[in-house]
Amino acid sequence: MERLEGPLADFHAIIPAGGVGSRLWPLSRAEAPKFLHDLTGSGHTLLRDTWQRLLPLCGEDGITVVTGRAHRGAVEKQLPELRAQNIILETEPKDSSAAIGLAAAILHRRNPDVVIGSFAADHVISDAPRFRAAVAEAVAVARAGYITTIGITPTEPSVGFGYIRCGADLDVDGAPHAELVERFVEKPDLDTATAYVASGDYLWNAGMFIARADRLLAQLAETHPELHDGLLQMAEAWDTPKRDRVVDAIWPMLTKIAIDYSVAEPAAAAGRLAVVRGDFPWDDVGDFSSLAKLLSGGRTGDLAILGEGARVLADSSSGVVVSQSQRLISLIGVTDIVVVDTPDALLVTTREHAQRVKSVVDAIKLSGRNDLL
Amino acid sequence: MERLEGPLADFHAIIPAGGVGSRLWPLSRAEAPKFLHDLTGSGHTLLRDTWQRLLPLCGEDGITVVTGRAHRGAVEKQLPELRAQNIILETEPKDSSAAIGLAAAILHRRNPDVVIGSFAADHVISDAPRFRAAVAEAVAVARAGYITTIGITPTEPSVGFGYIRCGADLDVDGAPHAELVERFVEKPDLDTATAYVASGDYLWNAGMFIARADRLLAQLAETHPELHDGLLQMAEAWDTPKRDRVVDAIWPMLTKIAIDYSVAEPAAAAGRLAVVRGDFPWDDVGDFSSLAKLLSGGRTGDLAILGEGARVLADSSSGVVVSQSQRLISLIGVTDIVVVDTPDALLVTTREHAQRVKSVVDAIKLSGRNDLL
Repeated sequence: MERLEGPLADFHAIIPAGGVGSRLWPLSRAEAPKFLHDLTGSGHTLLRDTWQRLLPLCGEDGITVVTGRAHRGAVEKQLPELRAQNIILETEPKDSSAAIGLAAAILHRRNPDVVIGSFAADHVISDAPRFRAAVAEAVAVARAGYITTIGITPTEPSVGFGYIRCGADLDVDGAPHAELVERFVEKPDLDTATAYVASGDYLWNAGMFIARADRLLAQLAETHPELHDGLLQMAEAWDTPKRDRVVDAIWPMLTKIAIDYSVAEPAAAAGRLAVVRGDFPWDDVGDFSSLAKLLSGGRTGDLAILGEGARVLADSSSGVVVSQSQRLISLIGVTDIVVVDTPDALLVTTREHAQRVKSVVDAIKLSGRNDLL
Repeated sequence: MERLEGPLADFHAIIPAGGVGSRLWPLSRAEAPKFLHDLTGSGHTLLRDTWQRLLPLCGEDGITVVTGRAHRGAVEKQLPELRAQNIILETEPKDSSAAIGLAAAILHRRNPDVVIGSFAADHVISDAPRFRAAVAEAVAVARAGYITTIGITPTEPSVGFGYIRCGADLDVDGAPHAELVERFVEKPDLDTATAYVASGDYLWNAGMFIARADRLLAQLAETHPELHDGLLQMAEAWDTPKRDRVVDAIWPMLTKIAIDYSVAEPAAAAGRLAVVRGDFPWDDVGDFSSLAKLLSGGRTGDLAILGEGARVLADSSSGVVVSQSQRLISLIGVTDIVVVDTPDALLVTTREHAQRVKSVVDAIKLSGRNDLL
């Protein structure tokens, strides 16, 4: 892999910092969503880790964050270097096509040659140099005109991730690991996932997209012209006094759709989507079972503990404890347990049932206890 | 059974209110031991329930409480009717022979014909009229000269209780269910317990002793003359200005021994111990598994909840939740779980491991965190 020195020319990272992470309740809350938590024990929030990871590629003025108005203060506190012109505040969540598309449209007006890369604020990547090498390859592929994603080489037949079916190799200078994407596959069952991993033809879809902004917008224009036009109108007004008026008029009307559906899948179908294989450890930490695995380095039978000053007394127990209170937490003989202790809510479940945490959040919504969400 | 009207003549109840109940940590604490908790959802502490149960037999001036100095305020708050002369404060715990023996010696000086009955402050009995009928029989047997216990007809082969092997029937007026006690058996294994229950010859040892005070003291004099003499010296000084000086000199020197060993077993060996069969539901609620059973009325698969204003969201879970905080407690797919949520400590275990809670308490002692005990 090439040695990276200094930021990549014309490359600008977009960090969509949204999503509550319901499956990580009561750790993740509406007011303190997943990206504002330290899930790795690094001492930094996932947002800060994401920023740090991208910084060598983009520089301090080359990263834009798209987030909800409610999180502005927290984001600015986490990222004191963030440029004022590089924060985009959503008045309401409109999914990733609008969030990334608006950022792309604004950045394209500022630099017609910009290559944008979108990276979730709440994923965990533990080998930053290999991550950056993959991004550098993806930028090279993007410069060659492809909408490009980074697919993760699967380490196990996970049923928690979507998969990317790889196609023909691409011959792009500076991108020895680039292939065309044949298609995307939603989260498969275990047998299918096992076959995928065995074949070597499938990668995990980590939701990273790298493209020339003009190519991304052109793709969006083909499949969702109204959304595309709205984004362009807002981008045109963005750096002018008209910004608020135009955004307030258009944003609420935008179609809510994930960029996977509006851009990536149509681009794959049209032979315009490339993938670079990423061999770095990646996890979207979708639930507490993933968190347990992440914190214990994959060792089962271990008890993982997350939380500053956590005090845990455990006797032949395994699983994960998240402590946000200063209380003593005692576990005796509980296996694959999940205990999340926060000042106003306690969750006890098992790794097996970690996906069902969302149902508790739904029940709380129904009960009207919004203070607990 | 005879219909009871008014207190029994010369009968005085002793309630030893001691013991921390380590297996119920972190609910039961040194400063708020088991007898100061409401474990049944009755709205009253176990101590208050015990008092109420005895009141028709003894009247307000016929019940003496023996407790530690630290609990004086809490006991007086629970029992505002308790007479000042009927509270005995221990400067340090000296086990049940000293506690009950001192009360018996004091009461004997006040009334040489007194029959005393000792009833733990922290047991649960749900059919008070049948309990009182059994006590009335036991008092009749005690008047006939026997040291008498009430044995509980076993409802299952419990390995958590000691057993009493019944012997020959006794012919005592007013006590149709009295038998001699052949011997006591410590907590047996499951096979032994099963055989005991099948035989019909064994009862649970509920630690209730009823006897003429003079007979009880005479028995103690035989086997532990020094302890007996110490108790008598204190009793002699008790209602005089010398009380504190004498007690401070003698109490610390007393042998620590359970009354089961100092009085009951020797009396059984000498043919002086009788038992009355008690057919009322009884439990000493020794651990959280017992508590779960008690609260769910024995139904497995239920989730029992204890705690004023407890807020629990549970999805296909069973076991017991004790809530002393106002936090929302969410359980998902945890079976036979034990969750005890207090302001400064949280316990998560299973009913199967409930007996091991004491090991946590031991670990906390070792760590020096006495505030958590």
